[in-house]
Amino acid sequence: MSARVLVVDDILPNVKLLEAKLTNEYYDVLTATSGAEALEKVEREKPDIILLDVMMPGMDGFEVCTTIKKNPLLAHIPIVMVTALTDVADKVRGLEAGADDFLSKPINDIALMSRVRSLVRLKMALDEWRIRENTANQLGVVEESSHVMAESVEKANILLIEDRGFEAQKIEQTLSADSHHMVIKDSGVQAMGELAKHDFDTIIVSINLEHEDGLRLCSHLRSNERTRHVPIMMIAEDHDMKKIAHGLEIGAHDYILRPIERNELLARLRTQVRRKRFQDRLRATYEISLSMALTDGLTGLYNRRYLEVHLQKLLAKNTENNKSTAVLMIDIDHFKDVNDTYGHDVGDEILRVFAERLKNNLRSFDLVARMGGEEFVVVLPEVADDRPYMVSERLRLAICDEPIPCKTPDGHLRISTSIGGAIIKPEEQATPEEALKRADVCLYKAKKDLGRNCSVFEDIGKLDAANYKPRGRPELDE
Amino acid sequence: MSARVLVVDDILPNVKLLEAKLTNEYYDVLTATSGAEALEKVEREKPDIILLDVMMPGMDGFEVCTTIKKNPLLAHIPIVMVTALTDVADKVRGLEAGADDFLSKPINDIALMSRVRSLVRLKMALDEWRIRENTANQLGVVEESSHVMAESVEKANILLIEDRGFEAQKIEQTLSADSHHMVIKDSGVQAMGELAKHDFDTIIVSINLEHEDGLRLCSHLRSNERTRHVPIMMIAEDHDMKKIAHGLEIGAHDYILRPIERNELLARLRTQVRRKRFQDRLRATYEISLSMALTDGLTGLYNRRYLEVHLQKLLAKNTENNKSTAVLMIDIDHFKDVNDTYGHDVGDEILRVFAERLKNNLRSFDLVARMGGEEFVVVLPEVADDRPYMVSERLRLAICDEPIPCKTPDGHLRISTSIGGAIIKPEEQATPEEALKRADVCLYKAKKDLGRNCSVFEDIGKLDAANYKPRGRPELDE
Repeated sequence: MSARVLVVDDILPNVKLLEAKLTNEYYDVLTATSGAEALEKVEREKPDIILLDVMMPGMDGFEVCTTIKKNPLLAHIPIVMVTALTDVADKVRGLEAGADDFLSKPINDIALMSRVRSLVRLKMALDEWRIRENTANQLGVVEESSHVMAESVEKANILLIEDRGFEAQKIEQTLSADSHHMVIKDSGVQAMGELAKHDFDTIIVSINLEHEDGLRLCSHLRSNERTRHVPIMMIAEDHDMKKIAHGLEIGAHDYILRPIERNELLARLRTQVRRKRFQDRLRATYEISLSMALTDGLTGLYNRRYLEVHLQKLLAKNTENNKSTAVLMIDIDHFKDVNDTYGHDVGDEILRVFAERLKNNLRSFDLVARMGGEEFVVVLPEVADDRPYMVSERLRLAICDEPIPCKTPDGHLRISTSIGGAIIKPEEQATPEEALKRADVCLYKAKKDLGRNCSVFEDIGKLDAANYKPRGRPELDE
Repeated sequence: MSARVLVVDDILPNVKLLEAKLTNEYYDVLTATSGAEALEKVEREKPDIILLDVMMPGMDGFEVCTTIKKNPLLAHIPIVMVTALTDVADKVRGLEAGADDFLSKPINDIALMSRVRSLVRLKMALDEWRIRENTANQLGVVEESSHVMAESVEKANILLIEDRGFEAQKIEQTLSADSHHMVIKDSGVQAMGELAKHDFDTIIVSINLEHEDGLRLCSHLRSNERTRHVPIMMIAEDHDMKKIAHGLEIGAHDYILRPIERNELLARLRTQVRRKRFQDRLRATYEISLSMALTDGLTGLYNRRYLEVHLQKLLAKNTENNKSTAVLMIDIDHFKDVNDTYGHDVGDEILRVFAERLKNNLRSFDLVARMGGEEFVVVLPEVADDRPYMVSERLRLAICDEPIPCKTPDGHLRISTSIGGAIIKPEEQATPEEALKRADVCLYKAKKDLGRNCSVFEDIGKLDAANYKPRGRPELDE
């Protein structure tokens, strides 16, 4: 993948050298020769990756890195620190400032290019999600997003695949002491068994396993649907650079060289865990947006839109299966008076409890939706013809038999509901509109002709209307 | 990126050879030695890419390809046909069956690997979207998706960057005759100007430009935000294979060799256009889901959820800017009677027109939402204190002055509205709940104390209540 790379170094020949190497690989290269210029270019140009020299006069690389990683609009841009320093403490300081990797001068070309390619690829994948998170934010679907650096890095689930017992033990001690939960396996087969059962935040894989090829294991983890999005960190020897490059190409996210330095391991692991959790959150945002599109915020029931889509599917299916579908249109009696007398807070509370009672008196595969205001619809799929009226009466009694606790002077309110029902036979091939309309006509009868707090069905309604005695008509202001 | 590759060939040594090459590059390889076995494995294993021999006894490669591409659950899996045939007609037949490319035996390793890598990368990017499209489908947010092969490939906008006038002309003739709209530029600079103004479905780039490096142009198109997702097809000479491989690595989607064969060009272009449109549709699905989460299906106004989020933001902002915010709570008078007398169809029509009139009498940055039922809220940000009452009266008159056309016996219905308004001063630091509550109290007064069809504000209401004369009280059944 092509990308825009910002090279930052105060020594011009260093800049030129890196620029030439990267241009030769068809990257678009931007350059800066001081920390201040770098910050200005990052802000303006939003590069895809930054190669950042550590030792610069004035603002050094650590400070530049920290500043970028603190900015929610820029924190997702990967940074590779480049330095002649070989001290582990410096390395860890860079990683803890949020750098994604640390390359030593003179730069190994394979290490550089495989690193850049890998980080650019990860960024591009994340960008797709980030762009949409922005849309979701603008529309207010989710809270203003925190950024990748704000993700928690505590208590991660880590799977370690390492057959050197002593090394595995040392890694476990280090990570367990840092709040993480570790599972250790010494072969790919055992690891796959574990991965089938549990979710992990990062998988650490030795590419020096004695009896199998660690890279092949990485490849397998990458091509497996279930583990495709879990970061992989490779453990390797210093002389494994070609294998490491290959591993990054395959899709491993990072690597650490033996002997493993405690703080470097912790810092690198945190980066991976942070990235994984950020990515998971972005995905979850989408799911939340979707569910918001289909449910009623007040009651948590499905909304009218969902009902209409699914009623259509249910009617079609039942026509095919030669079964009947019942549609109940349900209205709270005198609800307007509740709002007018006690205010919307009480009205909302009534709606919530009402919805709850409907749900509690239906089977899990019955469909219940709030159409708006005080109007609800229940769909009973695949019913025998005598059941809907029973269900309807059960729902009606569940409402009027028990006052609803709420903030009125009495501390509760007795309400009632009117229900109109239509049983749609398979051969009728009714549309959702027709089915709802038929239930609505019955509801109208229940309210106007039979004085509310009753169920009226198309046929049963006619039979019973003459000698119908509604039970326990409640008064609103009792 | 690692991936699962299915190799299909009836001659076992051919299978073994490809398997060895791919395994060496750390791909997970599956194999099949007949068309039937291939179909069975594709269905069961869902590989990331298929290398498919053309000449097989029984079911040949064309038939296998056609069958897979007709299946909505499998059509997204890229297929590379592999054959000893060199006839252009065969090549085109494969591409038209939906194959993504066509490699000739003996297989050039560079061509093979760069092709597989590129197609796998494109598939993975699309997979993210596909998975979520599935969620959206299950929830009924969008229509059951058609699949990639069902996308239209007509009337695409194509940008051609080619400095060989005669060749450019031939390509234009071919593509224009196939319904596409062509723009031709002979340099990168000119092309970028065009790309800044217009959207294209595919960009065709010669990598044999005389005065510039075509690959660098591809790289630039890939790293540029605006063109990152537009497919690139390279035009190259036979001996350019290393450059082609590099181009695919950079992110070009496909290539075609000179001399350009008319039908091959058309077939390859269709593949790219189809892919682009499929990808665009998947993206649009997400936007639709989001907007559904925030708007009211009946009126197209924002919903309660959106209002609550944004009212909070507006109040906070106005506190900061030291400006007042007005909140109007609006209710259609006697709306329940409309539904009961004329049915829900008329009620819905009234709500739609009502919403329309509110919108038409507000500024674009005023916020109007349907809270549910016949209740609406308007928020006027940054207002002087005398404006909200004027706006409120303008809205009220817009409703009651003009009957609403609908399916009543008269063909229209005159309705009215009551409005309660609160002006939230910056120093009050009111919450959205408090602001809405205050407007609601005024609305209650408008309806109960002043007999509807009027505006009541917190202060003005008190002043005017004594000598308030509502204008033109309409009767529902007039």
